[in-house]
Amino acid sequence: MNLLFHRFLASARIPPCISGIHPFIVDEKGDELPVPRLRMDSEQFIRGKKKLADMSGDGVETMVDNLQGIAPDLARYTIEFPYGEVLVRPGLDIRSRQIATVAALTALGNAPVQLKAHISMALNVGVTRKEVTEIITQMAVYAGFPAALNGMAVAKDVFSERDKKGLS
Amino acid sequence: MNLLFHRFLASARIPPCISGIHPFIVDEKGDELPVPRLRMDSEQFIRGKKKLADMSGDGVETMVDNLQGIAPDLARYTIEFPYGEVLVRPGLDIRSRQIATVAALTALGNAPVQLKAHISMALNVGVTRKEVTEIITQMAVYAGFPAALNGMAVAKDVFSERDKKGLS
Amino acid sequence: MNLLFHRFLASARIPPCISGIHPFIVDEKGDELPVPRLRMDSEQFIRGKKKLADMSGDGVETMVDNLQGIAPDLARYTIEFPYGEVLVRPGLDIRSRQIATVAALTALGNAPVQLKAHISMALNVGVTRKEVTEIITQMAVYAGFPAALNGMAVAKDVFSERDKKGLS
Amino acid sequence: MNLLFHRFLASARIPPCISGIHPFIVDEKGDELPVPRLRMDSEQFIRGKKKLADMSGDGVETMVDNLQGIAPDLARYTIEFPYGEVLVRPGLDIRSRQIATVAALTALGNAPVQLKAHISMALNVGVTRKEVTEIITQMAVYAGFPAALNGMAVAKDVFSERDKKGLS
Amino acid sequence: MNLLFHRFLASARIPPCISGIHPFIVDEKGDELPVPRLRMDSEQFIRGKKKLADMSGDGVETMVDNLQGIAPDLARYTIEFPYGEVLVRPGLDIRSRQIATVAALTALGNAPVQLKAHISMALNVGVTRKEVTEIITQMAVYAGFPAALNGMAVAKDVFSERDKKGLS
Amino acid sequence: MNLLFHRFLASARIPPCISGIHPFIVDEKGDELPVPRLRMDSEQFIRGKKKLADMSGDGVETMVDNLQGIAPDLARYTIEFPYGEVLVRPGLDIRSRQIATVAALTALGNAPVQLKAHISMALNVGVTRKEVTEIITQMAVYAGFPAALNGMAVAKDVFSERDKKGLS
Repeated sequence: MNLLFHRFLASARIPPCISGIHPFIVDEKGDELPVPRLRMDSEQFIRGKKKLADMSGDGVETMVDNLQGIAPDLARYTIEFPYGEVLVRPGLDIRSRQIATVAALTALGNAPVQLKAHISMALNVGVTRKEVTEIITQMAVYAGFPAALNGMAVAKDVFSERDKKGLS
Repeated sequence: MNLLFHRFLASARIPPCISGIHPFIVDEKGDELPVPRLRMDSEQFIRGKKKLADMSGDGVETMVDNLQGIAPDLARYTIEFPYGEVLVRPGLDIRSRQIATVAALTALGNAPVQLKAHISMALNVGVTRKEVTEIITQMAVYAGFPAALNGMAVAKDVFSERDKKGLS
Repeated sequence: MNLLFHRFLASARIPPCISGIHPFIVDEKGDELPVPRLRMDSEQFIRGKKKLADMSGDGVETMVDNLQGIAPDLARYTIEFPYGEVLVRPGLDIRSRQIATVAALTALGNAPVQLKAHISMALNVGVTRKEVTEIITQMAVYAGFPAALNGMAVAKDVFSERDKKGLS
Repeated sequence: MNLLFHRFLASARIPPCISGIHPFIVDEKGDELPVPRLRMDSEQFIRGKKKLADMSGDGVETMVDNLQGIAPDLARYTIEFPYGEVLVRPGLDIRSRQIATVAALTALGNAPVQLKAHISMALNVGVTRKEVTEIITQMAVYAGFPAALNGMAVAKDVFSERDKKGLS
Repeated sequence: MNLLFHRFLASARIPPCISGIHPFIVDEKGDELPVPRLRMDSEQFIRGKKKLADMSGDGVETMVDNLQGIAPDLARYTIEFPYGEVLVRPGLDIRSRQIATVAALTALGNAPVQLKAHISMALNVGVTRKEVTEIITQMAVYAGFPAALNGMAVAKDVFSERDKKGLS
Repeated sequence: MNLLFHRFLASARIPPCISGIHPFIVDEKGDELPVPRLRMDSEQFIRGKKKLADMSGDGVETMVDNLQGIAPDLARYTIEFPYGEVLVRPGLDIRSRQIATVAALTALGNAPVQLKAHISMALNVGVTRKEVTEIITQMAVYAGFPAALNGMAVAKDVFSERDKKGLS
């Protein structure tokens, strides 16, 4: 994990015992209260961090770093909800979860950056390159050829970047 | 709030003191472990319940009830994340948040049930009927006339239902 | 497979030996030439029929029947390309292919009829109900809560219909 | 054209000479000023009415009637901009314009009511049923099979309704 | 407003008195009649120009300039309809209108150029940066995390460009 | 047609007489069987190649070349199904087919590369530049102004590239 991301996590260390004491302050007026950072030690955040590390989701970490200056809570939510709540759930193995995500992002066709990150994470958790190209090819049926062709172009970028790093 | 929803919330009462003790159990194999209900007393869930009550989001409650038998956690997430995390945030007043949601759902055009619920909640938090029709009319510019016309048809249903109930 | 579908397939029996002889006639002017039915014995069509039977894709068959009167070739293509070319491909197992399709159709959110058919086929090829609800829940992350909630409503219909038929 | 629509148009008769005199009043505060009806004699509105009549766009007229009570200006814009400005433009014949619209609405897949109205108008201006089914079949390539299949289901409804009325 | 835009407006000056005399010529054949420039002094165009100036919508002006050589009427419509008809309407204040537009464009996720222009216009009419990031964060709920993350990346660009210009 | 594309086609030459003999091998396990190249002499592939040449679809050929290393079958399908099956169909002239495709891709708004290729092919088969800009302008009505403005930006690129090549 890169440096800024580590610093971000470091800044999140707060003794759990405190968190029960400070209630979350809600102000409907919309005043510029600093967003409470206490919940940075939430179960979900810690689980999400671990999950992200397991999947070596570097793309996501970079994105999270980029958000620190402007929307730290969207960064926090991105770790807590998708990674700390949903992807860690029992009931569906992580390979199948990445297959579902690669399929959905290819079909939607408007999030190439996220598709790139998830193709890489799919390969990191054991989905083969062949399986990735099959998923994307299949999307020609459900979302049309342009969506499949654009998804395949993203996969091609991911594969060549991983070739340089000697990754599967 | 209707009966089933109350029963759902009742079933969620667990002393907070326990929650720190039981870690969330994750099983990548996907075995049918019962999803832990301990977190039902999470800050977010309790905040979300309250928020939903403030907005008298009956449509959402009905939807949540319908999910109890099949996907209780999606119901829980729907209360925790949108209502317990996002809509309660400081930085933007609730009227503006509902204006944003009605605009987005009208533009996306594929979630009439949710648009109906959010138009109703928008009116519950002080957005006027005129403002709702202006938001939807404006979407003709950004998402096309069909999206605006279909959104207006949903608004028309909401307005006539509320007329019957004597609501604004 | 229902009666009309059988009749449709019966009408497709033409000795393969003929197919090489008659070239496909293309008329750019757009004259109302009957679309050649010779290719009804194509590898893809026969493979697609078999694949559809393997998956007991009744929903698709019904749809195909409904198209006979108006667009028989779209019906033929639906059997030849998705079922006869793509879903039979090596490189990705059929369970994973259905997981990808359920995810994509839930995310797109504008094809409930097809989502219903594919959830049913997913269950027919061994995806569990729990896995289906997990895929749909996960889509809340990538396509938003409305898409996930509407997809879950479709899954609920499929499950109750299958309960009546005593299907998994 | 049905009665309510006629009454709507009748109510729009105002001597053009007046329109130059009364400037459009804009109030950023958002006060409930009645929207000026003077412009009801605008070039675009009159051209749009005529265009709609030429295409016997009954579906649109019904939609416009339904909006009278709730959003009369969205109804007015729908006549002025699409029909009074765009569809009357030189540079592309009306048949081609309807082909473009049927293709786009089939591909977007979230406006079946408008697709129904435009398939009917396409047939009214000389597009053949065969051409309509070809356009929709072609969308399987660019927007996926579900979009094409759902579009074809709409076309089937239009064709059977027109059969009852003895229309092409 | 930049130079080319001024020249564009200058070229639009025609005495109003003339406009009533020359009827708009419609040619269904699609012949290459020059599009009448008489309406360049229409109420809507003049209102739209003023509105655009009020919002210092530089991004839109640049886009409009770029269209002069290829599609001057799409440029004209963009000023007349969105700015000259819809955004000037009473019934909803301009701040709320920009909140609605930023929400919709973030949710649609396929118009980053327009989202950039509207985030800037939102800030120009008094929406705070914090409110912009809250609107975009909220879209994670209704359109998914990728849409919100991509929208936030656009906001980040806008903010840094405005920092350089010393704008709010 | 460029060199790599020619090599791709050359590699596809196999005596038709063989093709009937070798059945397509399907392996549900998903083993890495080489995809049979026998069908490279299929009617559809040969028709598709010819169709693509007729339309001088260079953009598509380049895309197909780029896929050779990663997903040769998606390249093959792209020639066989859209060009070898759909675009060659009788019932709708090729000009109208390209009008439909340009309209659909402009409305979907998430496939600029394909829109660029199809605007160019539309001009190659006789659609005028004026007609292209009219189709795109019309999409402002059905998919919103951002979709139309982004489509027009793509058209502008195509036109200036063709000016350099002295093409219509």
